[in-house]
Amino acid sequence: MSSTVGQVIKCKAAVAWEAGKPLVIEEVEVAPPQAMEVRVKILFTSLCHTDVYFWEAKGQTPVFPRILGHEAAGIVESVGEGVTDLQPGDHVLPVFTGECKECDHCKSEESNMCSLLRIDPDRGVMIGDGKARFSINGKPIYHFLGTSTFSEYTVVHVGCLAKINPLAPLETVCVLSCGISTGFGATVNVAKPKKGSSVAVFGLGAVGLAAAEGARVSGASRIIGVDLNSDRFEQAKKFGVTEFVNPKDYDRPVQEVIAEMTGGGVDRSVECTGNINAMISAFECVHDGWGVAVLVGVPHKDDVFKTSPVNFLCERTLKGTFYGNYKPRSDIPGVVEKYMNKEMELEKFITHEVPFSEINKAFDLMLRGEGLRCLIRMEH
Amino acid sequence: MSSTVGQVIKCKAAVAWEAGKPLVIEEVEVAPPQAMEVRVKILFTSLCHTDVYFWEAKGQTPVFPRILGHEAAGIVESVGEGVTDLQPGDHVLPVFTGECKECDHCKSEESNMCSLLRIDPDRGVMIGDGKARFSINGKPIYHFLGTSTFSEYTVVHVGCLAKINPLAPLETVCVLSCGISTGFGATVNVAKPKKGSSVAVFGLGAVGLAAAEGARVSGASRIIGVDLNSDRFEQAKKFGVTEFVNPKDYDRPVQEVIAEMTGGGVDRSVECTGNINAMISAFECVHDGWGVAVLVGVPHKDDVFKTSPVNFLCERTLKGTFYGNYKPRSDIPGVVEKYMNKEMELEKFITHEVPFSEINKAFDLMLRGEGLRCLIRMEH
Repeated sequence: MSSTVGQVIKCKAAVAWEAGKPLVIEEVEVAPPQAMEVRVKILFTSLCHTDVYFWEAKGQTPVFPRILGHEAAGIVESVGEGVTDLQPGDHVLPVFTGECKECDHCKSEESNMCSLLRIDPDRGVMIGDGKARFSINGKPIYHFLGTSTFSEYTVVHVGCLAKINPLAPLETVCVLSCGISTGFGATVNVAKPKKGSSVAVFGLGAVGLAAAEGARVSGASRIIGVDLNSDRFEQAKKFGVTEFVNPKDYDRPVQEVIAEMTGGGVDRSVECTGNINAMISAFECVHDGWGVAVLVGVPHKDDVFKTSPVNFLCERTLKGTFYGNYKPRSDIPGVVEKYMNKEMELEKFITHEVPFSEINKAFDLMLRGEGLRCLIRMEH
Repeated sequence: MSSTVGQVIKCKAAVAWEAGKPLVIEEVEVAPPQAMEVRVKILFTSLCHTDVYFWEAKGQTPVFPRILGHEAAGIVESVGEGVTDLQPGDHVLPVFTGECKECDHCKSEESNMCSLLRIDPDRGVMIGDGKARFSINGKPIYHFLGTSTFSEYTVVHVGCLAKINPLAPLETVCVLSCGISTGFGATVNVAKPKKGSSVAVFGLGAVGLAAAEGARVSGASRIIGVDLNSDRFEQAKKFGVTEFVNPKDYDRPVQEVIAEMTGGGVDRSVECTGNINAMISAFECVHDGWGVAVLVGVPHKDDVFKTSPVNFLCERTLKGTFYGNYKPRSDIPGVVEKYMNKEMELEKFITHEVPFSEINKAFDLMLRGEGLRCLIRMEH
């Protein structure tokens, strides 16, 4: 047992003091885990668009000072009362949504939208007692998505931790904690393309390329990447993308272009941009009779999806997914095994790396649209 | 072999001479079936809304004079060149859409939208030679949906005929030729409610009640009927509907009412009205995480389906279906067997009956919204 059990831990964390300002590495106090909570030593974290979105906090209720970060891998330091699934030393991936295993959603085979631990970006405290576990000089520093992985230690509800194979390299599988599982699962769990089928992927960022990787692993024979930035095509080839369409190159809707390329439409499409027009195109580009479109990207809150209902009546299906329909505790350990068994590739998603002290460089890279995932190494 | 083989048959048919005017029973000449065609003696037919819709021909390219009718049962009189699946004496249900067994749709397990024989209400001739098989004094009388069952004899493409168990009572199973299969299949083939689940059915006409029957047969424990006409509830109970909601009784959207009744939404919904607002409600009333909504009703051509994309992202699914996703030749014989095995009930759909000479009474009943199906008996 670690000598820190039951004690407050002082450690470094990257604190967002206010919206859009560089994070500041501070010494924070991390309280011991309470009932159903786990304190985790974070070894690796990576930056996801969602962190940047809530750091910019445009049009949002600001929750600052706050410790961002939700894509990560670590090791359990200690556990709170009632935690039986995990013990110190276990290797874990924190996940921004949870699995209580008791609500209707957790009991449903079809849903992963846990009622108790569903994502709530406006909450900056633990659900048990409504308090933050982080503080500086006695003043609370707020949590983010229940994970706050931009800290050497964090406290997470047990329902938001996937216990994984201790042999898995944490610096690689940490990307399964959010984006890569989201895109990969959207394809393999929801779109479910058959071997030899055609798949269109809208948006060739990390999530879209993970969706393409899912199509590649499923044996799709045509994977059509759609992006407004043609520079992304070369990189996309590594993820199985076979053809590229830039909607800017055409004076007609991209769904028409794709229908022409494929004799009536693709078998499956996965939308990973969050742009409402891309969502509509992704739906309308699937083949009648059997086409399935899956929405992954998060839209603006006032966006409206519009289409002719006849597009549905011609036997097209539209579904949305959240975290690739994976249940964090039940399913993510198996995704890690897929990587371990070489059934999926992860290294190619990690294009940059910085030490924790230079975490703001990861933000700069993302704001410039460079690379896919920037790994942030906590120890150095 | 019948002595009529290869001969023109003179028989009675109900001719629609112009839009919206009562049909006239005329003596027509029915030419022998050409290649891949079958001449069928119709014994029973019933009236469906689609007949009335194209008889009224509002906002359509009028195709008159025409023999309407597409929900029927009959016996093969003779077959044209190349027809090997059917022979004189076989019992058949004509279907308004077909199954060529050779196109991409017929080869797909998921689609029933045959490229060759897909429904085309504007076509009044046979696809083989572009001519009508009906005539009066040498002048063509046009076909309708490739079936034209309001005639003692009709000519149908072999791909639009389901060969059924000769022991099945044609006066009952004739309703499987269109509406009842459409609604029943929408539930059992597409919505697929689990035992003990909740299902909302929008529209309690014959198609909606067939959808309810599908839910009842699937073991749904709550079947919520939604209709603007509360008089329909009593009848709907026979089809398994357990609760009734009339949107007119509430000052908030019916999807909110249903969500409150069911702790967040129904597991499945089936929309059988064609009203765009009902379609939107049917989608938005399904539970997040696992809800599936199925559109069956045919909308106006300028209608737009609008919803927040977040409704999809919370893991709801929206699908449309055509003829209950049944392939006419491959699947309908099995539906007839379901009836023969008492796994589904059909008699309760047939609320009225008229002799062929009084076919206009069936139109009157439908225009007044009375009853479900009016059986039209060709012989008397």
